[in-house]
Amino acid sequence: MPYIKIELTREGVSREQKRELIAGVTNVITNVLNKDPKLTHVVISEIDTDNWGFDGEQVSDLREKGITADKKN
Amino acid sequence: MPYIKIELTREGVSREQKRELIAGVTNVITNVLNKDPKLTHVVISEIDTDNWGFDGEQVSDLREKGITADKKN
Amino acid sequence: MPYIKIELTREGVSREQKRELIAGVTNVITNVLNKDPKLTHVVISEIDTDNWGFDGEQVSDLREKGITADKKN
Amino acid sequence: MPYIKIELTREGVSREQKRELIAGVTNVITNVLNKDPKLTHVVISEIDTDNWGFDGEQVSDLREKGITADKKN
Amino acid sequence: MPYIKIELTREGVSREQKRELIAGVTNVITNVLNKDPKLTHVVISEIDTDNWGFDGEQVSDLREKGITADKKN
Amino acid sequence: MPYIKIELTREGVSREQKRELIAGVTNVITNVLNKDPKLTHVVISEIDTDNWGFDGEQVSDLREKGITADKKN
Repeated sequence: MPYIKIELTREGVSREQKRELIAGVTNVITNVLNKDPKLTHVVISEIDTDNWGFDGEQVSDLREKGITADKKN
Repeated sequence: MPYIKIELTREGVSREQKRELIAGVTNVITNVLNKDPKLTHVVISEIDTDNWGFDGEQVSDLREKGITADKKN
Repeated sequence: MPYIKIELTREGVSREQKRELIAGVTNVITNVLNKDPKLTHVVISEIDTDNWGFDGEQVSDLREKGITADKKN
Repeated sequence: MPYIKIELTREGVSREQKRELIAGVTNVITNVLNKDPKLTHVVISEIDTDNWGFDGEQVSDLREKGITADKKN
Repeated sequence: MPYIKIELTREGVSREQKRELIAGVTNVITNVLNKDPKLTHVVISEIDTDNWGFDGEQVSDLREKGITADKKN
Repeated sequence: MPYIKIELTREGVSREQKRELIAGVTNVITNVLNKDPKLTHVVISEIDTDNWGFDGEQVSDLREKGITADKKN
């Protein structure tokens, strides 16, 4: 009976990306735990950048300084 | 000191239905546990159907296929 | 697709009370929203009284002072 | 690795107040626990007053009756 | 800055399975969203079967009736 | 009506530290928002290090490698 909540900043996540998150996370959970996907719910919660804090600062302030959360290459 | 979070898909829940959810759930909790309702908080969180996944699929995709979460009669 | 989280202090809630909470809350939710109970999950989270704060104080400190969360009669 | 969720009613909290909440809460957590603020995330979730229940009533109903959550002086 | 909470019933999930859940979910999230894994936190919450309700019933009651959440083959 | 959840790894947080977290966080929230502390609840959730993932790794694995979350001096 897994339930998964994904919280991320609201920065233009597309419907297709959400579809991939739901499919991918459900796949990991049900494979690792051998759980029925019909008992597996995933909820995505998008948070305004004003409402997320990291290192004591608002993410919207960090973004204005050019600091992103992108993967390093 | 109970706190109750209700997460559901954002599909036209009315103010009156929310009022009934709050009253009904508070009633169950305070009666079963003999708790003071003045210490009981209920939070309803409505989730876009793009953001809820079930069985590995987006609920908005399921709805477009005609699959609902309605009670069976 | 409702999901309900109930947080309460760990103060001797019995298995039978949990059963009543689950049945009662599921009943309210599925009736008010006309939702399929097979898509309705309820999670009870019991919190140690050291870990719950109210009015700026630890509930375990409040209990030691004789302050309860019981319903007033 | 602390994560802090702050839920409050959506009643005109300003960007500056959110900045103060994030800075203040991060400060308390990292000082009390001696944790690296770069591992500390704060998420603020604003809840419509129709969606928050207290004492079995919708906060929007309480507000219409003139009942606020303001600090008593 | 994603944060992921995974709630599942406490039914003998091993440390190795938790390791796989953390690695697998982080991989999906950071790939789909192109996010830095150093900003990605995953929290697993194991819930006693007495404390999880499905279809109005306690999971521990369902298990005693031989009903599992295992994947169908 | 604020509700605050603090999630942290279970690594020997004392009752006194919890008391300070509750008092300090309640103080920040009620001062910044001018809210009644009698409507302010704080819940601390301690998570086993096997159950917290950061950067795709279990915190218990990170700790065994000598990596901590302590504040840098």
